[in-house]
Amino acid sequence: MSELAERLGHRGDARLVIVNCDDLGTCHAHNAGIYDALRDGLATSATLMLPAPWSREAASRYRGEDVGVHLTLNSEWDLYRWAPITHAPSLVDGDGGFPRTVQEVWDHGDLDEVRRELRMQVERAVLWGFDVTHLDSHMAVLHQRPEFFDVYLDLAVDFGLPVRLPGAEHERAIGFPFRRLAAEEGVLAPDHLVALGNTNTPAMFERALHNLEPGVTEIVAHPAVDTPELRALAPDWMHRVEDRRLLVADEDIRRLLERAGVTLIGYRELRELQRGA
Amino acid sequence: MSELAERLGHRGDARLVIVNCDDLGTCHAHNAGIYDALRDGLATSATLMLPAPWSREAASRYRGEDVGVHLTLNSEWDLYRWAPITHAPSLVDGDGGFPRTVQEVWDHGDLDEVRRELRMQVERAVLWGFDVTHLDSHMAVLHQRPEFFDVYLDLAVDFGLPVRLPGAEHERAIGFPFRRLAAEEGVLAPDHLVALGNTNTPAMFERALHNLEPGVTEIVAHPAVDTPELRALAPDWMHRVEDRRLLVADEDIRRLLERAGVTLIGYRELRELQRGA
Repeated sequence: MSELAERLGHRGDARLVIVNCDDLGTCHAHNAGIYDALRDGLATSATLMLPAPWSREAASRYRGEDVGVHLTLNSEWDLYRWAPITHAPSLVDGDGGFPRTVQEVWDHGDLDEVRRELRMQVERAVLWGFDVTHLDSHMAVLHQRPEFFDVYLDLAVDFGLPVRLPGAEHERAIGFPFRRLAAEEGVLAPDHLVALGNTNTPAMFERALHNLEPGVTEIVAHPAVDTPELRALAPDWMHRVEDRRLLVADEDIRRLLERAGVTLIGYRELRELQRGA
Repeated sequence: MSELAERLGHRGDARLVIVNCDDLGTCHAHNAGIYDALRDGLATSATLMLPAPWSREAASRYRGEDVGVHLTLNSEWDLYRWAPITHAPSLVDGDGGFPRTVQEVWDHGDLDEVRRELRMQVERAVLWGFDVTHLDSHMAVLHQRPEFFDVYLDLAVDFGLPVRLPGAEHERAIGFPFRRLAAEEGVLAPDHLVALGNTNTPAMFERALHNLEPGVTEIVAHPAVDTPELRALAPDWMHRVEDRRLLVADEDIRRLLERAGVTLIGYRELRELQRGA
């Protein structure tokens, strides 16, 4: 039974799903694919990667969809780079952008610079007109170390936003009670987290739906259109193209969702609950 | 008669042409189009825009071609942005990148920050393995104001590189003797400058060739492949696609060049002359 589902006005055993598209703003192929998925497909929210080169274009297409901020401290693709939008010497790798690995961020990131950079990412999204619905963390860098989690939680409190978190079953492995800490501050998070990257064939998606637990599950996808740009930059471009096909064009998936008794929701519902409660 | 042509070992009335592709590194479409033009077409050199998102990818494709540095202080496209690679508060516009207009750079650019940023652009190109052949100035921001020209000339002297300059006929309009100042420092520049952007139909290109003066002429082009990415970002994408067609696929242009008695050269010849003389 899910207390969060009940607080959102559903039965405690309801299965509510947020389909979030990460990486909005990275490149043309993602901007096109994600807005397709939001407008003509099954996606219910997306998160904007503010420091990435196409973020301004993503802002120009925004029409009030559920869009949060994909807080970013890494530039992980080998040959296509983005960099901090604030002065943050500890957050660049000397090769034109943020470090490529999370370990580099944990080892060398100055927490004051992290805090200032991430706050500016949220503030610029607001400045560009986004009605920011939530926060999540690119490459999960912010919810695996207590000192980085503090920054994440402070931003969620200050801006009144819900966040993505790993499921409770991961708390022991990660080593600190991130879900309890968030709850104590009144910050909401979906109950469960599933990456569509591991389930992006119709059969695997079907199994994921059958395995859905009661409560709110966030499913994470990376839909992109198939272009020469995408193929040149993303080693896993095929998964991204397949995500778009599943979310936009696959009639079987729509029927599966209906048969599974799933209700699609956005992050905005969580945000309103968090702010209004 | 051209003294430069003679010093390069040609007759003083020879017509020598450098075909340079600007904007290498901006996006996938330019990287693909420019390397096509360098390897299978008529281009003899290119200039790398270091702060742009695809510069690292351009470096990964480099095989010793004539490549210089397209010194950059502007991010002029509305929705696709690049930013300084050094800490340069006077060189950002608050919207995720360099200022969009040259006037903003002239009005607000701190010259110490300009100097440090541009030096780092050259140094990083060297670090990435480029045998840098020359320098030019994105949007001509560096050769229209004496205080910015000082930075340009100092870099050319320090790195032993030739530069792009407007023709002598523009010195009066621009208002200071930039060609004489360069010559006094031993810095070489082609005699004439023609933008292919104004001549990119076969007929106009033919006329430009017939009008070529004796000496070294740099023709500037922006070849790009025709992709959804390019169409989404560059207002003048058609000119860029047409540049690529002219330089890579147009047999008439090859015949025109032969009939006009033009000799194609690169910037490397000027650099060797400048360094060895």
